[in-house]
Amino acid sequence: MTNKLIYLDNNATTKVDEKVLEEMMPFFKEEYANPSSMYNFSRRSSNAIKEARVKIRDFVNAQDEKEILFTSCGSESANTAIRGVLNYNKTKKHIITSKVEHPCVLNLYQALEKQGYRVDYIGVNSNGELDLEELAAAVCEDTALVSIMWANNETGVINPIDKISEIVKSKNKDTKLFVDAVQVAGKIPIDVQANGVDLLGISGHKFHAPKGVGALYVNSKTMITPLIIGGHQEKGKRAGTENTPYIVGLGKAAELAQSYLDYELTEVKRLRDKLESNILSKIYNARLNTGVANRVPNTTNIGFEYIEGELILLHLSDLGICASSGSACTSGSLEPSHVLRAMNVPFTAIHGSIRWSLSRYTTEEEIDYVIEKLPGIIEKATSISPYQNELQALKNLRK
Amino acid sequence: MTNKLIYLDNNATTKVDEKVLEEMMPFFKEEYANPSSMYNFSRRSSNAIKEARVKIRDFVNAQDEKEILFTSCGSESANTAIRGVLNYNKTKKHIITSKVEHPCVLNLYQALEKQGYRVDYIGVNSNGELDLEELAAAVCEDTALVSIMWANNETGVINPIDKISEIVKSKNKDTKLFVDAVQVAGKIPIDVQANGVDLLGISGHKFHAPKGVGALYVNSKTMITPLIIGGHQEKGKRAGTENTPYIVGLGKAAELAQSYLDYELTEVKRLRDKLESNILSKIYNARLNTGVANRVPNTTNIGFEYIEGELILLHLSDLGICASSGSACTSGSLEPSHVLRAMNVPFTAIHGSIRWSLSRYTTEEEIDYVIEKLPGIIEKATSISPYQNELQALKNLRK
Repeated sequence: MTNKLIYLDNNATTKVDEKVLEEMMPFFKEEYANPSSMYNFSRRSSNAIKEARVKIRDFVNAQDEKEILFTSCGSESANTAIRGVLNYNKTKKHIITSKVEHPCVLNLYQALEKQGYRVDYIGVNSNGELDLEELAAAVCEDTALVSIMWANNETGVINPIDKISEIVKSKNKDTKLFVDAVQVAGKIPIDVQANGVDLLGISGHKFHAPKGVGALYVNSKTMITPLIIGGHQEKGKRAGTENTPYIVGLGKAAELAQSYLDYELTEVKRLRDKLESNILSKIYNARLNTGVANRVPNTTNIGFEYIEGELILLHLSDLGICASSGSACTSGSLEPSHVLRAMNVPFTAIHGSIRWSLSRYTTEEEIDYVIEKLPGIIEKATSISPYQNELQALKNLRK
Repeated sequence: MTNKLIYLDNNATTKVDEKVLEEMMPFFKEEYANPSSMYNFSRRSSNAIKEARVKIRDFVNAQDEKEILFTSCGSESANTAIRGVLNYNKTKKHIITSKVEHPCVLNLYQALEKQGYRVDYIGVNSNGELDLEELAAAVCEDTALVSIMWANNETGVINPIDKISEIVKSKNKDTKLFVDAVQVAGKIPIDVQANGVDLLGISGHKFHAPKGVGALYVNSKTMITPLIIGGHQEKGKRAGTENTPYIVGLGKAAELAQSYLDYELTEVKRLRDKLESNILSKIYNARLNTGVANRVPNTTNIGFEYIEGELILLHLSDLGICASSGSACTSGSLEPSHVLRAMNVPFTAIHGSIRWSLSRYTTEEEIDYVIEKLPGIIEKATSISPYQNELQALKNLRK
């Protein structure tokens, strides 16, 4: 056990930025009014929410801040978008998604299938890239919704949303496109207009806002039935007293994320690349699972052949290093990752695959420490693997 | 304009207790792990959530902490409970509620009516007390759910939940009882077992936790379909990364609320009674809208006859006094309160009715200040009323 903390699991959640917390604090203290109240005391709260909405509008480049709803998390954003579109127009019963979506979205589709919806799950190639031809062939007259993540949480592979939108709209202009942008917010620029996106969800805690707040972009031409029905908040599209502190925090986090984008695309990427290239060169049974795919700058997914990922994570945790296999939302299950299975990652590597995800707080010293410690951990795990012959063959091959 | 703040709108929202904020802070700072992650770093977060769940179990006297789900607000709790019960068993199409429920719940019922549900809205008498005979007559074989608030947000009138449960279960033992307890949490003791409650919702920001967190009790014999489908969180009944700071805050707020219950039932009640009796004795056109009904200790709803409530609120706001007409969730609408209409409050008083709601932070000085200032405000508003003859008659009558 150690007091050291090297946090390389930023796709699971992130540290709240101090500036975000600072901006939230007055709304935990003196500014506690219900923003819907009519007296003077509530004005600073309602104005702060207005300002946050404008910040999120700018963050995703929406045309109008009226197109932004605040939600309690990425899962609520996705549920609101997907079920909101389907419930608004119940005549269309076909949905298209991908095999590598977040488990949250996949579980929702399984529930919808039980309700009579037909769902096509588009595959990916061995790099994790979406099969665009399969997508084009799947869109039909009855397709209500295409729901595709912007980047994958496990691999960081970026989907070409502009091309996807073009394909979908050319086949059926009435089909709506929902993009789960949870894993790109703060990592690459988001532009809903340039990419032809109808609905887009983000989650605050993936870009240094707290857990428990998200946003949903719904363009002015897209109608949805609300998920949480009740008061007039969010123009009747999401009931519940506004979470002023977190909404303010989300706005600030978006502003900061925008200002750090260059840093993310250069410095965070440099550290990720350093980690990745050192692991691949120093450890003979390491394998980059995504090949040459286009990825967000903070993520790398590396398979360690013939050993168990859980064992690696345990040893890392003892050194204070946090990384993960699969998503936090499926932790505790021993099933190998559905994402890596869809990519046909060989069974020899799938169980020993680790996701490393950096942030703007990651330092060179931390990366150097992992590069120093990891080979020993892998060697130890490899030494007790029952696949010694295969490992020897691999060693000879890669020499 | 003034810098004074006399906050008598605690049924709309409350100030976060400093001890609650203090307990939350580590989870905004160093303890930012995703509670579902597997490494050591996440343990303090997942343990903190476990402890909070036990605190909420104790707060409502549930049998088992597994019966507690965390949600993002009271509206989400109500939506999850009501739609969760109906969607789990779609064969039953009858629901019973009351005419004076929170607008959040009433809007949901209107949506359900459009989906083919039959909804009976039970009336109240002129004190705001539920018509239990009407309720008994309404329960039938097809009744899936009875949904009744524990206390009304506008009047504070308490419903006899134990009797309601007895009536409902004696008519149909399979009918589920959902209780919206948002307005009783921290004001009177909650005991789901002693009162025969199947599902119960609370909202943190009504008892000095932040806005954006709530809880739902679902007893072990009641099955629901989740509202937000996705990850495994909350045993699959509510997806989304856990909002650790707010969940911890909710637990602490519940613990504090329990410890302040005596204070609420004695001192807060004393100040409420002082405010009420002084207004009624000093202002001849004031009228207690609830008569002798049993009420929560912090609330009084008083009608000022022949004048406009909005005008009173405006003058109060200029003095830094926050009170309200109706609920914050319907603010901005000029419709008279549906609660007071259901009580048949005379049209001469309904537009001039004000809700005053105190908290443990309310001081004697504040109450004295309102008692000092209010008569002048009412006199000013009365002097420009077009009903001078009626007012003179009333004055003579009450002398």
